[in-house]
Amino acid sequence: MIVLRTIADVRQAVRQFRKEHSEGMVGLVATMGYLHAGHASLIRKAREQCGLVVISVFVNPLQFGPNEDYERYPRDEKRDMELASEAGADIVFMPSVEEMYPSRPLTTVSVSVLTSGLCGASRPGHFDGVCTVVSKLLHIVQPDRAYFGMKDAQQVAVIMQMTADLNIPTEIIPCPIIRETDGLALSSRNVYLSDEERRQALVLNRSLQVADEMIRNQQEASVGEVRERIRETIRTAPLADIDYVEIVAFPSLQVIDDELPIGAALKSSKVMAALAVRFGTTRLIDNRLWDAEGGLV
Amino acid sequence: MIVLRTIADVRQAVRQFRKEHSEGMVGLVATMGYLHAGHASLIRKAREQCGLVVISVFVNPLQFGPNEDYERYPRDEKRDMELASEAGADIVFMPSVEEMYPSRPLTTVSVSVLTSGLCGASRPGHFDGVCTVVSKLLHIVQPDRAYFGMKDAQQVAVIMQMTADLNIPTEIIPCPIIRETDGLALSSRNVYLSDEERRQALVLNRSLQVADEMIRNQQEASVGEVRERIRETIRTAPLADIDYVEIVAFPSLQVIDDELPIGAALKSSKVMAALAVRFGTTRLIDNRLWDAEGGLV
Repeated sequence: MIVLRTIADVRQAVRQFRKEHSEGMVGLVATMGYLHAGHASLIRKAREQCGLVVISVFVNPLQFGPNEDYERYPRDEKRDMELASEAGADIVFMPSVEEMYPSRPLTTVSVSVLTSGLCGASRPGHFDGVCTVVSKLLHIVQPDRAYFGMKDAQQVAVIMQMTADLNIPTEIIPCPIIRETDGLALSSRNVYLSDEERRQALVLNRSLQVADEMIRNQQEASVGEVRERIRETIRTAPLADIDYVEIVAFPSLQVIDDELPIGAALKSSKVMAALAVRFGTTRLIDNRLWDAEGGLV
Repeated sequence: MIVLRTIADVRQAVRQFRKEHSEGMVGLVATMGYLHAGHASLIRKAREQCGLVVISVFVNPLQFGPNEDYERYPRDEKRDMELASEAGADIVFMPSVEEMYPSRPLTTVSVSVLTSGLCGASRPGHFDGVCTVVSKLLHIVQPDRAYFGMKDAQQVAVIMQMTADLNIPTEIIPCPIIRETDGLALSSRNVYLSDEERRQALVLNRSLQVADEMIRNQQEASVGEVRERIRETIRTAPLADIDYVEIVAFPSLQVIDDELPIGAALKSSKVMAALAVRFGTTRLIDNRLWDAEGGLV
């Protein structure tokens, strides 16, 4: 595995691979580093499918709001290189902020509609930052496939919309959420949690399991009732401060009528329960996806 | 020369070319059709430099305002094919609106700062539409080089900014304005002009020639004086209705202080005189560029 820090070097390495393997596939895993088993699962999936696996590690200032955690976002290059290598990456692309933004960027890629709700509502500008940096990375690496975790399900929907709308010739591969054995969804931000917050944060996955049982066994329950059951469950954790709990169609992210029975909702599209909850200063997200056949993620 | 109407077919043709010519260059000339000698000069330039020359013909609804001329914009596929073939194109890509926008597009590519003045000021949303469709075409064709005419100098500056900011791996090649023998800059919109409007429209190039003489011979004249001389010249045509006359740095498009002597302005950057003037319902644009050595375009 090699570590490259300039755009020119990554382009050269990908060009060289394509020259030597005219039918070979290039896979990209775009990350903000501080890698965990969730990222490793993306890298392994890319490794299964592609001849060249590039992982980018870049904490993108553009996607953090002024009061968010850009400065304190956890970073550990050495550990990232080890984990990327173990998971099977060929190239780790670790550019500096100056390499990615040599002058003030004037160009923004934005996706409307899909970004107005869920995390988009409480993080204005976040998805513009995501779309802009992902489009840069897709232009730099020019991968056949790019792998994104469904933990950030709204991000997956937005990036799929962007690549379709702009005809970006990269297939977006959504990959399942990876959880700790106790159910907490893996996130680089979990390190912020105190022991007590960490313990109470288990309520998030538990609330989605409650919804899962309800959806499997009470198809006549309304969408609003399912959502309320999730909220009630989360509220049993005294440190949990709910940002949102929503039930939306996937991947359109359209809000579903509260009165509609969940069984009926599942007949017209996949359904996602998505939530964002603060524990102290740490904002965690989680979600679960169902189709008419049952649970998906 | 072949005519292709689907994205899949163009991609396939470009892929085939690259397979057979691993070192071959692909050139793109993006047009809205109704081709004239200006477009032909772009195609010929691409022909000189590239092994595969793709010309796209697509009147992009996204870049027209609600009160602009999208519906009546002149179209002539047969003539376009003939001119493209004569100029040396290999592929004419003529997609339908449905092929380019199969569903309502939610993604926008926008460039700030460079788009606030000149045509951006009187055509809100125009450059978002241009950037979005050009990024689509660059993703569809994936050319090594794309050729744009300096007649739309602001568009050239905006597209260069976009490709640099987003790391789009295509080199943008600006090409000189082509004029009728009487000096009128070629434009598909010239067909809208009545005989009298056409005659009076010659004042545009004449006003830029007046500026050129002034810039060559009176380096101490202020930027404001040069701009006023252009305006005065245009005002001698009774049918001319000035939208703007501006003197800006190129390619930053920054407004230059009116008091600054033109000679001093030329020491720090290229200088462009740009204008938009209505004759009846037809809005024409023209421009001229100088550096410290003299006239450029």
